[in-house]
Amino acid sequence: MKKCNIGLVGAGTVGIGLLEMIRDQKEAIRMKTGLDLTVLEVATRTPNKVPSWVEAKVSNDTLSLTKNPSIDIVVELIGGTTSSLEIVQSALNNGKTVVTANKALISEHGEGLFALAQKQALEIGYEAAVAGSIPIVRALRNSLVPNQFSSISGILNGTTNFILTKMEVDQLSYKDALKLAQDLGYAEADPTFDVEGIDVAHKISILANLAFACKTHRENIEVKGISSIQDKDISNALAMGYRIKLIGSAFMRNGKILMSVQPSLVPLDHPLANVMFEKNAVYYTTSHSGAGMLIGSGAGAYPTASAVLADIIYYGNRRNDTSKEFLEINHFPGAIYGKFDEEKSRYYLRFTTIDKPGVLAEIAKILGKYNISISSMQQEESMENEPTSVVILTHSAKEGDYSKSIKEIDSLKEIIKEPTISFPLMENMGSN
Amino acid sequence: MKKCNIGLVGAGTVGIGLLEMIRDQKEAIRMKTGLDLTVLEVATRTPNKVPSWVEAKVSNDTLSLTKNPSIDIVVELIGGTTSSLEIVQSALNNGKTVVTANKALISEHGEGLFALAQKQALEIGYEAAVAGSIPIVRALRNSLVPNQFSSISGILNGTTNFILTKMEVDQLSYKDALKLAQDLGYAEADPTFDVEGIDVAHKISILANLAFACKTHRENIEVKGISSIQDKDISNALAMGYRIKLIGSAFMRNGKILMSVQPSLVPLDHPLANVMFEKNAVYYTTSHSGAGMLIGSGAGAYPTASAVLADIIYYGNRRNDTSKEFLEINHFPGAIYGKFDEEKSRYYLRFTTIDKPGVLAEIAKILGKYNISISSMQQEESMENEPTSVVILTHSAKEGDYSKSIKEIDSLKEIIKEPTISFPLMENMGSN
Repeated sequence: MKKCNIGLVGAGTVGIGLLEMIRDQKEAIRMKTGLDLTVLEVATRTPNKVPSWVEAKVSNDTLSLTKNPSIDIVVELIGGTTSSLEIVQSALNNGKTVVTANKALISEHGEGLFALAQKQALEIGYEAAVAGSIPIVRALRNSLVPNQFSSISGILNGTTNFILTKMEVDQLSYKDALKLAQDLGYAEADPTFDVEGIDVAHKISILANLAFACKTHRENIEVKGISSIQDKDISNALAMGYRIKLIGSAFMRNGKILMSVQPSLVPLDHPLANVMFEKNAVYYTTSHSGAGMLIGSGAGAYPTASAVLADIIYYGNRRNDTSKEFLEINHFPGAIYGKFDEEKSRYYLRFTTIDKPGVLAEIAKILGKYNISISSMQQEESMENEPTSVVILTHSAKEGDYSKSIKEIDSLKEIIKEPTISFPLMENMGSN
Repeated sequence: MKKCNIGLVGAGTVGIGLLEMIRDQKEAIRMKTGLDLTVLEVATRTPNKVPSWVEAKVSNDTLSLTKNPSIDIVVELIGGTTSSLEIVQSALNNGKTVVTANKALISEHGEGLFALAQKQALEIGYEAAVAGSIPIVRALRNSLVPNQFSSISGILNGTTNFILTKMEVDQLSYKDALKLAQDLGYAEADPTFDVEGIDVAHKISILANLAFACKTHRENIEVKGISSIQDKDISNALAMGYRIKLIGSAFMRNGKILMSVQPSLVPLDHPLANVMFEKNAVYYTTSHSGAGMLIGSGAGAYPTASAVLADIIYYGNRRNDTSKEFLEINHFPGAIYGKFDEEKSRYYLRFTTIDKPGVLAEIAKILGKYNISISSMQQEESMENEPTSVVILTHSAKEGDYSKSIKEIDSLKEIIKEPTISFPLMENMGSN
């Protein structure tokens, strides 16, 4: 029986979930993996909130934990990129294997941390940082390695997927759905990080690094969130045979990588369209394995703790081996980024206009000037001279021409009352 | 750079696909994994069919290959359970790591082979044996280990899923869809192994071993194939909101395991319902990670070769490490099997009867006697006194009562013209 001692930093819901799982699954894990897990220390800002059944030493001294010579693996569950960085560096410097659920840390400081780990002949597990319990990091590091990827994309944020699902199934407004998500604990009091797509940007950059074996940075991702989506966009899209999903996407075009986070219209028969509520999914297209998708619980205390625990077991078992995980960002060349301007997509456009004669002709004229042709158009019924919505589904046209035409249309101040909403159709995002 | 030399036994389509992938991806694999792969020897019954660009030594001497001291990994791709068993045993006895795509071998001889591997401090990779390129074996061995499984099920045979899909989308008869699958190379000249569910039985037993950490045997699986399905069953099911899929399933009930392979009616909003053509998928429900599904290419030369190559890389890198894969059947207790008799399910039943007064009453009376109540019933239009179909969707009732009632109904020789067709509804199979 191999022993493995754990130091846990951070005892929020995921941390407590992990402690419960280790307590309850200890014997099953011994039987299934030959590993005997013990949590020796827990460090948290609020030691008095740690349940009394926890047998580990509990303190608020995170850095002394990383120096405890009896600890093999330091688990970092505090999030953010300031003290977490210091803790992980200290752990590696003190010869500990690191397991973390921190997507921001891995996305923004991965390069330096993996270089440090390599120098120390140690490993960093971060399965829980992307899509919770979905084993996509392991799949990319091992199972799918023989493939060249053409794309990887997904629904990577449970909060926004829950909001979009509730807007559809219960016909809620964005505001009410967000409120509900907050009441249920799916969304933070300040939801910016989730609803504006920043969380997804971190995650898709991590997936792109592994899939394409190159260094990507979040700053090179086009990011658009879901806060401008109205319930009528959801129902319009459904009537056209699509579901609006917040999609993080990375794909190769002529050797260059294109990355985006944006609400997209996913055809109802696409596997990603049926990923509902707080579920996450990752969809990929490859050279030899074809297309595939992993779907599962992307967030929550137990699914995240389960992914953390899987990493503890995996890296705990390997800790004294000489072979170390190789597929890591410090080995990779920097990404070469392509431009979206020349990419062709179909688009969903919604204009908020004054309902008066000639408005549609004006919009259609500008779209035509930029070679954007219209597949379908519908105008909301309204009072004359009152604001109304015009919804257009286009044929395929260049991304750059959409930007230009929308800018020109939005400048028609006498007829356009709100900035135009524009979402691409997923079938043309390079993802299938 | 770590070197890894391969001996390949079997050079059919998967074997040649593997040789092509190693040739084409050699540099990418070096860059991504630090492993330098070389195929030293190929053994096949038809050496003259191996392409001339293959630089390895080619022969028909499989057993001498397993003794070549320069070879690190023996890849077994000949299938079956006779010479493949001898080859794998010889490879292990000679200190080689083994990678195989052979589900029958692992399902029927796994226990002895893993015990031998353990004795030799070696490992056996078999990701390709179940669901081709879908990384479910790796996920079960590592990522999902912290969970207790309540069920694992899936669409595990591309041939039958292709046939069922074609019967739906092109309204083909079973016979014509099978013929098409054979013409396209998706089905063997003798399709028994696939269409009668034996292939799926091997695969679900392997998945059940890993998910439930117990030894299961194929003989304890209730197996029913797809050859009695008619195109009208497909359209009847669709009209009721279901798709017929051949489902391999294993689930726990009160600490006992229940396993089956059978055509099942999957609700259209269940993730498995939208797995079409030759795609495979594995669906699971767990204690801490909730429900999840992996979907991808389950067969074909490249997807299978890709899974084999992933194992070669994974085990090749670990070859000199002391830690070995632990979650294997030789460590597990034997499965305790439950009985289906007391399980409750809804059922789709189709009776082929003579269209004459009193027939429906007779059938309904027998069903009622066994406490099976009818949710919906429809009778095909036909000429009086000619054969016709009666299709019944039931409410939930005990499996044992279905068997008894169907036996009694089928014995009504004067009205029942063909054996009754009965498929369970997936929602009650313990899988969601």
